[in-house]
Amino acid sequence: MRRLLLVTVVGLVFLNAYRVDAQGIDTERIVAMERAALDRWGKGDPQGYLEIMAPEVTYFDPDLEARLDGLPAMRALLVPLTGKIKIARYEMLKPSVQQHGNVALLTFNLLCYQNGDDGKERLVARWNSTEVYARLDGRWRIIHSHWSYIKPDVKQPAVGES
Amino acid sequence: MRRLLLVTVVGLVFLNAYRVDAQGIDTERIVAMERAALDRWGKGDPQGYLEIMAPEVTYFDPDLEARLDGLPAMRALLVPLTGKIKIARYEMLKPSVQQHGNVALLTFNLLCYQNGDDGKERLVARWNSTEVYARLDGRWRIIHSHWSYIKPDVKQPAVGES
Repeated sequence: MRRLLLVTVVGLVFLNAYRVDAQGIDTERIVAMERAALDRWGKGDPQGYLEIMAPEVTYFDPDLEARLDGLPAMRALLVPLTGKIKIARYEMLKPSVQQHGNVALLTFNLLCYQNGDDGKERLVARWNSTEVYARLDGRWRIIHSHWSYIKPDVKQPAVGES
Repeated sequence: MRRLLLVTVVGLVFLNAYRVDAQGIDTERIVAMERAALDRWGKGDPQGYLEIMAPEVTYFDPDLEARLDGLPAMRALLVPLTGKIKIARYEMLKPSVQQHGNVALLTFNLLCYQNGDDGKERLVARWNSTEVYARLDGRWRIIHSHWSYIKPDVKQPAVGES
């Protein structure tokens, strides 16, 4: 009886740590990985992301002329930003995980806040975020990231305009 | 001998129609699906996309305040655009497919051109495009789309700015 109780308690602790929902989706683990990387990013440390990106990673953000391919290209982009990013607080809105086999597609909107010189918090960026994770050799890794602004105030290109 | 030849010819035709590369990736089929939907989109017909979206589809584009979830929401967004989109020509740049099991992640940059009143072609939009396909009941369906502008001329929000 005691042993059964112990097994049950250990089982519940385990289930709580790695809760998988009714569809077998590893939502909490994926969201926790993303939050851990974001926390480091907001403190100026891009290694949190680089450490969980797969060699095959592909990447879009609004400052690039085209898709970036592969981990060496990501390192070249992100390492120079070390110490340059400061996010006081962020809100991850409605994170959603769509899992199919060894792929978990995480999507969310993100609001980023900084503290102004006057000590007031201000919203500095609003993002659409797509993070595609794949389970490779048993570990979840990012194989694709797409970051874009919510409702940017755009001028589309005037190339070829008369 | 004749029979062997016939089998070989049929096999080669089949392989050519649905070429799967050395990694077993169904690149051509996925790209062909996307192009077929894009062709219809450029003629003002959103049904090409709606017909290949899964019920679980999630979606980002630059005009939305937040992620859109589910096929009914996609219909509500796209059906009113019927007849309103006109793309004379597009270039799909460096399409890449990363396939893991029943998920195929298609990414590309897209240049869209329209014909001006002066008959000159002009570039009207440059996109970063992420299309996540999943094989559901044997059919490839879009489970996530993320469309964003390349290098938009942005003003990020002034909310809370003093």
